[in-house]
Amino acid sequence: MLLGRVVDSVWSTRKDETLTGMKFMIVRLIEGSDESSGSLIVAVDTIGAGIGEKVLVVGGSSARLLPELMNKPVDAAIVGIIDEGTNE
Amino acid sequence: MLLGRVVDSVWSTRKDETLTGMKFMIVRLIEGSDESSGSLIVAVDTIGAGIGEKVLVVGGSSARLLPELMNKPVDAAIVGIIDEGTNE
Amino acid sequence: MLLGRVVDSVWSTRKDETLTGMKFMIVRLIEGSDESSGSLIVAVDTIGAGIGEKVLVVGGSSARLLPELMNKPVDAAIVGIIDEGTNE
Amino acid sequence: MLLGRVVDSVWSTRKDETLTGMKFMIVRLIEGSDESSGSLIVAVDTIGAGIGEKVLVVGGSSARLLPELMNKPVDAAIVGIIDEGTNE
Amino acid sequence: MLLGRVVDSVWSTRKDETLTGMKFMIVRLIEGSDESSGSLIVAVDTIGAGIGEKVLVVGGSSARLLPELMNKPVDAAIVGIIDEGTNE
Repeated sequence: MLLGRVVDSVWSTRKDETLTGMKFMIVRLIEGSDESSGSLIVAVDTIGAGIGEKVLVVGGSSARLLPELMNKPVDAAIVGIIDEGTNE
Repeated sequence: MLLGRVVDSVWSTRKDETLTGMKFMIVRLIEGSDESSGSLIVAVDTIGAGIGEKVLVVGGSSARLLPELMNKPVDAAIVGIIDEGTNE
Repeated sequence: MLLGRVVDSVWSTRKDETLTGMKFMIVRLIEGSDESSGSLIVAVDTIGAGIGEKVLVVGGSSARLLPELMNKPVDAAIVGIIDEGTNE
Repeated sequence: MLLGRVVDSVWSTRKDETLTGMKFMIVRLIEGSDESSGSLIVAVDTIGAGIGEKVLVVGGSSARLLPELMNKPVDAAIVGIIDEGTNE
Repeated sequence: MLLGRVVDSVWSTRKDETLTGMKFMIVRLIEGSDESSGSLIVAVDTIGAGIGEKVLVVGGSSARLLPELMNKPVDAAIVGIIDEGTNE
C-alpha cells in the first residue's frame, strides 16, 4: 500500500457505466520526505475520506477485493485514514 | 487510476487479431504539476474520448473488467472523461 | 520482491473493516546504494518484523497468497526478515 | 500498453522449459520525447516484429491472454507493430 | 520481463513458511546503458543462476506460473540465463 494525502475530488460525467456513483479522489502520494513532490493518482473512496486527510491506498487487483469494487474496472482505492498526531 | 490527456491516436495494421477494431489512444499522464513532462502510455478507448480531452485511465488487470476488453491482451483503458472547468 | 528497512508502524482507526487486526509497517525500500533515498511503502507484517529490521517485501496479487491475507484488499506484505551480518 | 522500439533479440540457452521456442526481443520504451533515454524491457514477440520497428507492448497478466502465452511465466508481449509515416 | 545481473544471494531465517527452501538472489536490473545504476530486486532462482550471470526476470503474478512457485507469495523469478558473448 502507499501513503498519500487527498488533495481534490474529480468529476466525470461521461464515464463507463459501471463506475456510476463512485467517489473519485485525487491523492498525492507520500513516498519520500518531500510530501509536495509526490505523484498524483486517482483512488476510489469507500470510507469517507476528506480533502487534506492522510490515507492508505491499495493498488492493482487488490483494490477490487473491496466489496463495493468487486469486478469493477478500478485499480486504486482508499482503504484507511491514517491517525495523525499519534502517528506521523 | 491515473489522470492523463489524450494527445494522439495510434494505428497498427499488423497486430494480434484479438485487438481488431479497438481504438488506441496515446495518453500523456498527469502525475505532477508540469503536465508537459508526463509519461506516454497507450490506452484503449471505449467511451469516445477525443484528442485534447482530460481522461481517467485504469491500468493492469482491472482494464480487462470493461465488458469490451474481457479476456483481451490489453492493460490500460480510458474509463472516464474528466469534467474540466468545474474541476481542474 | 524488494528489500527494505522497517522505519515505523502506522495506525488507522477508520479503515475498511476487512483490515481489522492487521499490523501495518512503513518500509523504506532499498533499491540502490543510498539506502536513505528509498521510497516509502506500507506493508502488512505477519511475521513479527520490528522497526530497524531489514525485510523482504512481496507486492501485488502475490501478497494475497499469504494465508492471513487471502482475499483482503492488501497489495504488499513482509514475508521475511533478512539475516544481517552474515549477509549484506 | 506502452510504445517502444525493438532494438535487439536476446538468447537464453538455459531457461525454464516452458519458455522453449519463444522469441524474446529487447524493446526500448518510448515514454517521453527523447526516445533514446527510454528503459529497456524484454517482450515476447508472437507477431513477427523486426529490429527497428515501433511496437505496442502489453505488460503484466494481460500478456498471458495471448493464446501462445496462456499460463506461461511471461509478463510482456509485443501485440502490434505501429504504422509509421501515417502516424508518429 | 527485465534483464538484470545477479549480484548476491540473500538469506532469511525468519520467513513465511511457504518460502522454505527457495533460493533468493539479489538482481541489479539493466534498464539503461549504465548497468551500475540499475535498481535492486530480489528474485527466486529455480534454474541455477550464479552470481555475475546476466538473467531474464519475470515479475508480478506471472512469476507464479513457474511450477515451483504456484500459489506462493512470490512476485519475481529468474526464468533464463542470457547467452553472453553471442548476445550483449
